[in-house]
Amino acid sequence: MPETGLLEALIEAFRCLPGVGPKSAQRMAFHVLERDREGAGRLAETLLEGLDRIGRCERCRTLTEEKICRLCASPNRDASLLCIVETPADIMAVEGASVYSGLYYVLMGRLSPLDGVGPAELGLERLEERLARGGVNEIIIATSSTVEGEATAHYLGEMAHENGVRVTRIAHGVPLGGELEYIDRTTLAHAFSGRRDL
Amino acid sequence: MPETGLLEALIEAFRCLPGVGPKSAQRMAFHVLERDREGAGRLAETLLEGLDRIGRCERCRTLTEEKICRLCASPNRDASLLCIVETPADIMAVEGASVYSGLYYVLMGRLSPLDGVGPAELGLERLEERLARGGVNEIIIATSSTVEGEATAHYLGEMAHENGVRVTRIAHGVPLGGELEYIDRTTLAHAFSGRRDL
Repeated sequence: MPETGLLEALIEAFRCLPGVGPKSAQRMAFHVLERDREGAGRLAETLLEGLDRIGRCERCRTLTEEKICRLCASPNRDASLLCIVETPADIMAVEGASVYSGLYYVLMGRLSPLDGVGPAELGLERLEERLARGGVNEIIIATSSTVEGEATAHYLGEMAHENGVRVTRIAHGVPLGGELEYIDRTTLAHAFSGRRDL
Repeated sequence: MPETGLLEALIEAFRCLPGVGPKSAQRMAFHVLERDREGAGRLAETLLEGLDRIGRCERCRTLTEEKICRLCASPNRDASLLCIVETPADIMAVEGASVYSGLYYVLMGRLSPLDGVGPAELGLERLEERLARGGVNEIIIATSSTVEGEATAHYLGEMAHENGVRVTRIAHGVPLGGELEYIDRTTLAHAFSGRRDL
């Protein structure tokens, strides 16, 4: 190794990023030092600023630099619809599809008692208060179709029923353009049991 | 999109890293904000410090925070041997193999006239001065086996000959443990033409 110091520290620091192992970290460090110091400077500054200023929306818990995120603050969104997702990235995905004009609630995870993630960690008390307060006519549950995601969906369903709010779950099945032969068995089983009349 | 501001800027900033597209950048931004603010803070600080303090070694041109890098400054390295590589990462690879105890010279690229990379960009004048000054008995050329790498090797060979310095090129062929059926044709052709008596 040519250095014991800062260069190694920088390579090591890149490993905090997801999916970045020792080789990628080294490649990133050399790349920015040799070829993109300007971009790297911008990354470092933006990262510091983001860490300092990006927190959670007080209403929907998504990541935002405001107290109330742009979607929650928008007068153009239908406040009677509430889509419940696991992460802020899920919001981006749904928004990208341009099919939904309601609001969101971000769990930042899913119920997983073994990992110490209970209703409190997911902010479900605040969600229940919001449902009890009225104004929400339907919650659309878009948690993942994993065991924890389903358990979370079930919990949310109970909570909504108690508060007299309609509950729906997004459809799971064969993706559009997906060829049957390449679809996993669980999805296919789900697609059959969830078939609809034409 | 939930935000127009800082979060988008952060996702965009991550794209300066090699191999990071829109999806990975988004994943990185969410990961550090949701799960590893400490690591991200360290990354940002180390990056700023690195950009500020890491420059090139005055002797071998590798990346270092010192004026003279640790290898060039070491009294334990054999100064009569000079291995010429394209990048600082190459030094790490050779050092990792623990087979070489000489010094290095880093081109930071390879001759590529069409891209405006000539001898001056690779610091070859300084290398020639060093060879002319004496003290180096052999240069070991470890540039890549691409067309530009070979052209660079040829140029370096001429330069060394003019200065009466022995020139060698590292061997190219089938990697150890490499199975013939999976080796590309060019490497295999090289391995045959470069065969040695047993």
